[in-house]
Amino acid sequence: MSNSTPTPSQDQFANKAQAWSARFSEPVSELVKRYTASVSFDQRMARFDIQGSLAHAEMLAASGVISNDDLAAIQGGMQQILQEIEAGQFEWSIDLEDVHLNIEKRLVELVGDAGKRLHTGRSRNDQVATDIRLWLRNEIDISLGLLQQLRAGLAQLALEHADTIMPGFTHLQVAQPVTFGHHLLAYAEMFGRDAERLTDCRKRVNRLPLGAAALAGTSYPIDRERVARSLGFDDVCRNSLDAVSDRDFAIEFCAAAALIMTHISRLSEELVLWMSPRIGFIDLADRFCTGSSIMPQKKNPDVPELARGKTGRVNGHLIALLTLMKGQPLAYNKDNQEDKEGLFDAADTIRDTLTIFVDMVPGIRVRPEAMRAAALQGFATATDLADYLVKKGVPFRDAHETVALAVRECETRGCDLADLSVAELQAFHPLVGDDIHAVLTLEGSVAARKHIGGTAPERVREEARRVLAESANR
Amino acid sequence: MSNSTPTPSQDQFANKAQAWSARFSEPVSELVKRYTASVSFDQRMARFDIQGSLAHAEMLAASGVISNDDLAAIQGGMQQILQEIEAGQFEWSIDLEDVHLNIEKRLVELVGDAGKRLHTGRSRNDQVATDIRLWLRNEIDISLGLLQQLRAGLAQLALEHADTIMPGFTHLQVAQPVTFGHHLLAYAEMFGRDAERLTDCRKRVNRLPLGAAALAGTSYPIDRERVARSLGFDDVCRNSLDAVSDRDFAIEFCAAAALIMTHISRLSEELVLWMSPRIGFIDLADRFCTGSSIMPQKKNPDVPELARGKTGRVNGHLIALLTLMKGQPLAYNKDNQEDKEGLFDAADTIRDTLTIFVDMVPGIRVRPEAMRAAALQGFATATDLADYLVKKGVPFRDAHETVALAVRECETRGCDLADLSVAELQAFHPLVGDDIHAVLTLEGSVAARKHIGGTAPERVREEARRVLAESANR
Amino acid sequence: MSNSTPTPSQDQFANKAQAWSARFSEPVSELVKRYTASVSFDQRMARFDIQGSLAHAEMLAASGVISNDDLAAIQGGMQQILQEIEAGQFEWSIDLEDVHLNIEKRLVELVGDAGKRLHTGRSRNDQVATDIRLWLRNEIDISLGLLQQLRAGLAQLALEHADTIMPGFTHLQVAQPVTFGHHLLAYAEMFGRDAERLTDCRKRVNRLPLGAAALAGTSYPIDRERVARSLGFDDVCRNSLDAVSDRDFAIEFCAAAALIMTHISRLSEELVLWMSPRIGFIDLADRFCTGSSIMPQKKNPDVPELARGKTGRVNGHLIALLTLMKGQPLAYNKDNQEDKEGLFDAADTIRDTLTIFVDMVPGIRVRPEAMRAAALQGFATATDLADYLVKKGVPFRDAHETVALAVRECETRGCDLADLSVAELQAFHPLVGDDIHAVLTLEGSVAARKHIGGTAPERVREEARRVLAESANR
Amino acid sequence: MSNSTPTPSQDQFANKAQAWSARFSEPVSELVKRYTASVSFDQRMARFDIQGSLAHAEMLAASGVISNDDLAAIQGGMQQILQEIEAGQFEWSIDLEDVHLNIEKRLVELVGDAGKRLHTGRSRNDQVATDIRLWLRNEIDISLGLLQQLRAGLAQLALEHADTIMPGFTHLQVAQPVTFGHHLLAYAEMFGRDAERLTDCRKRVNRLPLGAAALAGTSYPIDRERVARSLGFDDVCRNSLDAVSDRDFAIEFCAAAALIMTHISRLSEELVLWMSPRIGFIDLADRFCTGSSIMPQKKNPDVPELARGKTGRVNGHLIALLTLMKGQPLAYNKDNQEDKEGLFDAADTIRDTLTIFVDMVPGIRVRPEAMRAAALQGFATATDLADYLVKKGVPFRDAHETVALAVRECETRGCDLADLSVAELQAFHPLVGDDIHAVLTLEGSVAARKHIGGTAPERVREEARRVLAESANR
Repeated sequence: MSNSTPTPSQDQFANKAQAWSARFSEPVSELVKRYTASVSFDQRMARFDIQGSLAHAEMLAASGVISNDDLAAIQGGMQQILQEIEAGQFEWSIDLEDVHLNIEKRLVELVGDAGKRLHTGRSRNDQVATDIRLWLRNEIDISLGLLQQLRAGLAQLALEHADTIMPGFTHLQVAQPVTFGHHLLAYAEMFGRDAERLTDCRKRVNRLPLGAAALAGTSYPIDRERVARSLGFDDVCRNSLDAVSDRDFAIEFCAAAALIMTHISRLSEELVLWMSPRIGFIDLADRFCTGSSIMPQKKNPDVPELARGKTGRVNGHLIALLTLMKGQPLAYNKDNQEDKEGLFDAADTIRDTLTIFVDMVPGIRVRPEAMRAAALQGFATATDLADYLVKKGVPFRDAHETVALAVRECETRGCDLADLSVAELQAFHPLVGDDIHAVLTLEGSVAARKHIGGTAPERVREEARRVLAESANR
Repeated sequence: MSNSTPTPSQDQFANKAQAWSARFSEPVSELVKRYTASVSFDQRMARFDIQGSLAHAEMLAASGVISNDDLAAIQGGMQQILQEIEAGQFEWSIDLEDVHLNIEKRLVELVGDAGKRLHTGRSRNDQVATDIRLWLRNEIDISLGLLQQLRAGLAQLALEHADTIMPGFTHLQVAQPVTFGHHLLAYAEMFGRDAERLTDCRKRVNRLPLGAAALAGTSYPIDRERVARSLGFDDVCRNSLDAVSDRDFAIEFCAAAALIMTHISRLSEELVLWMSPRIGFIDLADRFCTGSSIMPQKKNPDVPELARGKTGRVNGHLIALLTLMKGQPLAYNKDNQEDKEGLFDAADTIRDTLTIFVDMVPGIRVRPEAMRAAALQGFATATDLADYLVKKGVPFRDAHETVALAVRECETRGCDLADLSVAELQAFHPLVGDDIHAVLTLEGSVAARKHIGGTAPERVREEARRVLAESANR
Repeated sequence: MSNSTPTPSQDQFANKAQAWSARFSEPVSELVKRYTASVSFDQRMARFDIQGSLAHAEMLAASGVISNDDLAAIQGGMQQILQEIEAGQFEWSIDLEDVHLNIEKRLVELVGDAGKRLHTGRSRNDQVATDIRLWLRNEIDISLGLLQQLRAGLAQLALEHADTIMPGFTHLQVAQPVTFGHHLLAYAEMFGRDAERLTDCRKRVNRLPLGAAALAGTSYPIDRERVARSLGFDDVCRNSLDAVSDRDFAIEFCAAAALIMTHISRLSEELVLWMSPRIGFIDLADRFCTGSSIMPQKKNPDVPELARGKTGRVNGHLIALLTLMKGQPLAYNKDNQEDKEGLFDAADTIRDTLTIFVDMVPGIRVRPEAMRAAALQGFATATDLADYLVKKGVPFRDAHETVALAVRECETRGCDLADLSVAELQAFHPLVGDDIHAVLTLEGSVAARKHIGGTAPERVREEARRVLAESANR
Repeated sequence: MSNSTPTPSQDQFANKAQAWSARFSEPVSELVKRYTASVSFDQRMARFDIQGSLAHAEMLAASGVISNDDLAAIQGGMQQILQEIEAGQFEWSIDLEDVHLNIEKRLVELVGDAGKRLHTGRSRNDQVATDIRLWLRNEIDISLGLLQQLRAGLAQLALEHADTIMPGFTHLQVAQPVTFGHHLLAYAEMFGRDAERLTDCRKRVNRLPLGAAALAGTSYPIDRERVARSLGFDDVCRNSLDAVSDRDFAIEFCAAAALIMTHISRLSEELVLWMSPRIGFIDLADRFCTGSSIMPQKKNPDVPELARGKTGRVNGHLIALLTLMKGQPLAYNKDNQEDKEGLFDAADTIRDTLTIFVDMVPGIRVRPEAMRAAALQGFATATDLADYLVKKGVPFRDAHETVALAVRECETRGCDLADLSVAELQAFHPLVGDDIHAVLTLEGSVAARKHIGGTAPERVREEARRVLAESANR
């Protein structure tokens, strides 16, 4: 041991490049530095890092751990740093590993010892957990707004097409007639559940890990509930080991995002199908399509296709995070640094995709005549004939079989059920009466399904207005 | 067209083997039958299928669609069928494709035309969607109970070990001392969030799809809210197309199950580590371990290892379901039949695993002396020394550096910080005083962390009691 | 220590139920037994377990480790056991954990001490690794045969439709005319690569782990190369620790299987689209379709839809196995038992699916007139017009733009490019000549693409014959 | 129709910003542009795009499609563009969507009409497929080199530690003694299989899609085999529809990369465990570790932890690509643009990770004394005692049971098997002789396992030399 007191260096960041390196005899290599550094992607949390630091500093001052002068210095320094970042003048350094050390070093440059006191009673482990929750909470709120806008767009279009009849498909075969408005509202339901899920996830995001320090809490007299209040958190994480290693909220968010993209992929699949020339139910505005470098006639529905493809990346991020956490012992391990890029990209993907769909849906041009023509193909009202017989007292299973035989006959003759005369229909079942053709029309079929959840125009209008009201309220 | 009225066959199931085959000219091959049939795995929903059918029949009778005599016949028939199934006497037939047609055919055998009237106003599409929700709701309730039991077991053990000190690890390196009770409570937090997620998921499971019929609703005067009430559903699905094709609830459940297994995998990893002879923190009861066919001395922690491995299968089911739904157009497609086996297995996996852990956790034998010995290795109280200096006025960053130098010196000398004399410690910083050794003890370190979420014994006891109360209330 | 020699029990299996339990003081619970046992699913490897045991025993006898009498007894016993299993008379017991101990116990029952000597120089760790490789090698060979049969079926249909013109789609928009035969051969290429991948995977499956014993090898004078030869393995695993813990081959197989299912999903998507009434390019034989319990007119392409859905489960198994192996320390851990069910199901899924597709593809009924009508819609020969101009000296980019303007004009007028007169076309570019209409026909367009890989009928016939020859040779 | 010949614009790129926009009435929005553009990530393929274009141009000239003057102009232009890109002076524009149009536009700026002729007989669909294969082939070759370097590093260290004894673990319990060299060589085997898989994958990457044009081939007299030769491809893709939509090679690469990362995760897990203070088998060089911002004593194995975490992202990319391709109809769809980012990141991840491990492995500092101490704990030679008895004629199952009883006695007494006297051991079985203690030593145990794949030092040296020779040859 040296017999003179070692002097702390004037700037622990400048001459050692790392806040922790006093006990290290060898610097990390350049590749290791790049491999382990996160500043290239975590700098997007800078605003939230500063917000968290300010709340921490205010609490330290209120608890008497730092002086009010220190607090004022920290506040002034942080204000300047925020301006530098927003102006694009902040110099991010990979030598300083991450967003936290970059900002802290700059703070020490600007305000000296007060800056060195900021890290009292916290660690980067709880700091980064706080930052990412603040960031994600903000992303959730944005996506919640977009989901409601998208629902409103769907409901508005549904209202316009509450009477537009198209074939309802199962197995891509014509099943029964439905209204286009009803079809659109199915997606409003899906995105509604997505919003519920994000809202539920937000509750678990919105808890404060700060105060867990490295893993065990701290010996300083901190006031975590004060910090939670000032940052708008609903609660504090109640176990320090869990607080620094919990990434559930990120996984839960990715799972909710994967479902959003799954719904987008289903809608996209239908938009692509509907725009294919043999089907031709809709057209998309040119600005959501692109052409071909070789085929001059092409107009391709690029946006829905690309959105459909992006489902994969969000599913991938979900698996990446689950793989990451599998079998990790407590408390913090460096593996956890890998949580960010996937989470960021998942949030970006749903935000961009929802934004574009909010713009695209109202621009869908509907071709009711093509829809109607398709609905008339494929015996869409066969179920109505069976139901008709049942109402006359035929057991459903017998009615079903009778109609199947009639359909088989029509197929042989190349005609529709509605093309058969009353007499011909009576040959299949004597209970067929003169009122049968009203039942076999598309309009009659949809109008009859007027219970909650049914495709009748009146019900579609009611549901569309409900969705519009819901989406406006949030 | 034949000139005589075709007679519906007496039994549409018996001689054609399929409820839909009147229009088909060729039977499905044996392999196709096996490939497309689901009865081998969906028969486990039989109880819920009957429950749903009874609620449907009661509503049909109340709405006047079927007679009270028909209802009584259906009720009687179903009671017998349920008994046959529970007694293992029911003959499941692959020719009848699925649980629904198997039961319906038997009902028609037993009660004739009344049985043929049961399928009025519904389709297998909404029927299966109802069955699976009833089944899953029941599974969720069971798993919620198990999660609370497991939390209680962890909290009880935590209470017993609120004062047992072990090394807290980050990066599997000794970081700071924590109590074993505190460590256990981290898992109680995780499983608590899992219970929250299942509860949130349950809300979306517990909505009634019945009434959507094939895809568009039905022309019968059905009363869906009555059915919902009698089956205990909170709400009805508000769009028929969505109701028959929505599998969100299954995906959301699998995502929640994947997180449960992820937490189990983390706990398992630690149990395996802790039982490894060099660490030796705990021992598991023999009944959760197995031996070797070749190495006579082995006692292997098979249960936690296998549980850790089972994380993979639940992650896999989650991906399977997401892949399944990607890009599916509305409404029902046969792809959706693939939703069941993965969902069933995910539910079974968490149920079995939680059941075993509920039994295993209380049987953990703790070796406090091994924990203590490990905590004394690795400078676990270095942070306390830094905090001590900060409290004397040294800026945190300077204190941190000073301690790093002291640690480096100790490593060279092969001793612990607590082994240095006051004078030796003063050589690193003149503000070190005679009270320093109290700070450097393990007990002093943990006792100081007494804020919410901290590892202090008093706090651990308080939190353990809170968890016990919570888990008892549910 | 007791002062009398403990007597080994007469039957280590019968009274302790486990081959390893002499040092255990407590039996495993029933649930633990069920949770950790694998016999319910690994019994399907019984034939290969016996095959491996016989090769091991022959080597032990040849090396002098056991006597020839012992060998003869083992061979006789195993013959009987195999017969019992094939006759369905073998009693599998969950108390005996897995297929290995079940068979070994029965062997000891049948032949006494000779049976107890069989496990000399091996462990269940290398035994199960051997069994699963023998089993998987067999599955690969079966699937390779099916892939070639499927390719042959595609090529045969391609030969019949080498001249049938359909629209080639990109983005589901009409791009350029292609022949249906050409389209089918795209899938023959995909399944050809799948066969290559399985063949490559087989090399890594076909290496012998036996001899690794528990993890370190054995002290007996074993001859691993002899065992490898007698079991048809190409090589021996060269590191015992790796041999017992390697599951690469299972993951690689699942990845190859996932690609097979991905290709099946693409073909299925197209079959479903093509069979949708608005497109109507094909019809599938009734035996691959099913109907509806409510809609009497339905004929649904269930087989391709279900096959498309099954893509998910194989993707899931792949992820399950990757998750399983992530972060596992050497050598064997119980986690690895989880490798089997997913692998078995992946193999079953591709085998069943390929078998059905081998039968289904030749039964596709093609509707050339619907294909032709669709090809005439959407300016499919616009690229040919551009190419025509380029051949007259116009730079491609300029030609592309000229044609785009002509298409825009046609869209406005609601006509096709071929409907414009030579004079009208000349208005767009003066180099248009009287030969232009030959270029704008569908037949002219496809015939011109006669290079390797092009869609010209003559090329399609040549490629189809190549595929037929390849698939016959294997 | 206008009655004057429309004049192709002078620069189709400059004033319309898109090569395909002549038929579009509305520009794409800024967000759509950003959403659909790929230039931000596909510019990394620029070198390969130019390489492919030059081979295409040479073929066009050789086939007489363009003049030699045009070829020379293109070659000159491309040379300048390559220099601009390498100097960082090239201006990438998001308006030009992707790397291909950016380069083509610049070429037209530089060389005029010759540049406009380059795109003759190809499309971006086959162009991008070619670029990505050239890029991936290069990445595979780099990673193959790294894998062999890593294997050499492992083998070299194994050679140094062929005699260093450590406990071999199963279930993290001490199983049998092994040499550290043997343990390291297990990883050399894994990375050897990884190299095989990349080599197999390379065969399928190395086929030329160019000539498929948009989807159907081209009407120009192209010579695909010439292009294949000049670009070093082994073969040409034999179906144009498949050529533009095949992404198998990317998925297969990601699957191989996922296995590489899985192996890395296993090695990392062990490095982290071995460096944990209670185990202490090794130390990593400081430059692969980092410290803590709060705990001054920490030295964390960040590199292996982060590498272990990165397994997740590669698994995620694999799932993303599989999801992407699921159910895609032929031929090209915009979804496919999503293939790149995941593939790029997977390749980067294995390249960076392997590079760091190549550096890190030789810097592992081994602590043989800690390994030996651990091997002496846990009855590692119990199997040797059983084998000893078998060699004296005791059936294996009886010997196994005898040793289990002896181990149980030792556990009660707190001693090792080797601590028992001959007489005490004879109390368990009378065939124990005076030579028993030689068998119970660690050295005796490992030396006895000298067959292929065994842990004996002589065998380890032989295998290490084989790996060194193999890795040097490639």
